[in-house]
Amino acid sequence: MQIAIVLYDRFTALDAVGPYETLGRLPDSEVVFVAERPGPVRNDTGSLALVADKALADVPRPDIVLVPGGPGQSDQMENEVLLDWLRTADATSTWTTSVCTGSLLLAAAGLLRGRRATSHWLALDQLPKYGAQPTGERVVFDGKYVIAAGVSSGIDMGLALLGRIGGDGLAQSVQLLTEYDPQPPYDAGSPQKAPAEIVAEWRAKSRFILE
Amino acid sequence: MQIAIVLYDRFTALDAVGPYETLGRLPDSEVVFVAERPGPVRNDTGSLALVADKALADVPRPDIVLVPGGPGQSDQMENEVLLDWLRTADATSTWTTSVCTGSLLLAAAGLLRGRRATSHWLALDQLPKYGAQPTGERVVFDGKYVIAAGVSSGIDMGLALLGRIGGDGLAQSVQLLTEYDPQPPYDAGSPQKAPAEIVAEWRAKSRFILE
Repeated sequence: MQIAIVLYDRFTALDAVGPYETLGRLPDSEVVFVAERPGPVRNDTGSLALVADKALADVPRPDIVLVPGGPGQSDQMENEVLLDWLRTADATSTWTTSVCTGSLLLAAAGLLRGRRATSHWLALDQLPKYGAQPTGERVVFDGKYVIAAGVSSGIDMGLALLGRIGGDGLAQSVQLLTEYDPQPPYDAGSPQKAPAEIVAEWRAKSRFILE
Repeated sequence: MQIAIVLYDRFTALDAVGPYETLGRLPDSEVVFVAERPGPVRNDTGSLALVADKALADVPRPDIVLVPGGPGQSDQMENEVLLDWLRTADATSTWTTSVCTGSLLLAAAGLLRGRRATSHWLALDQLPKYGAQPTGERVVFDGKYVIAAGVSSGIDMGLALLGRIGGDGLAQSVQLLTEYDPQPPYDAGSPQKAPAEIVAEWRAKSRFILE
């Protein structure tokens, strides 16, 4: 299986690396980081670059498409080179997946119409514009579409899809080897759980950023 | 604050990117990915390269040192360029940290003598050779040393240290923005929790790999 992970300027690194480290451990698979042009691609803060080894055009028929999110997603929403590639790759993919605001790119490409989906909690309300229906789940399976919520949820998505493809034992092995026994020092990982004033602060800031 | 994240051939990507995405969100900090030589550094499977923007020699006095682990750690255990840099950087650092088998590099540099520490569960028994005492904790604070267990535990370490430096509210904000509300689809993230036959399988394979 060929797994293509899409990079673009100002993506969020953990969105890509979380599922890479889980799903990417699928035996007999090839993972390829792809971008419009090959070479280093800088993340949202600019302090990290991941290398895209191939151009989108060089990887036209991946078995699994994985689209991370990040602040740079908004600049890609009308990038027809990327959106066309997503449509073409999706036409033959076995699984089409995203993390965080990566789902908005799938949605903009027209791939989530009539589908259940999710996104970063601050971006959920944008999905209906594209005919997708936001759910409260952390990982949403709808047919061949596997859509994860914000940033770190890609780790859970990667494990869930790995189990679906390769079986429970494989996914459990990868969970054990990555020692994924999470013990967050706080319980603030969702707007339902974080202190209300922190949620309100970021909702206010995101209105400023996103609109 | 300057945060230096060390890369070397065949590191594990999530070891570096997990704490990068949490601790690296510290306001007014500068994160620098460093390696013996600047440029792309390939991870353990070879399918991903992260770019080291500076050479070790160019970043002699970081405030925080972060050493990821990975299969490539064993080739670095006698690399005096790296070990000397770790000793020098540690002499003036505020915090010296590691994820996974990165702790064995700190130990080989002589920095964990008499300290409580941890590592990937398959490497814990190597710590006493260097005078460090393995504990069963996922994240171990001992003075200025903050040592995390395998791979994904660096996310928890990054949040815990972020809270220690910048306060609970900051760490909770970062947990919320990375939507770190883990929901692993299996409960197999430690040798105590994974199916016994899977643990035994990997213990057997690691004896072959590590010795």
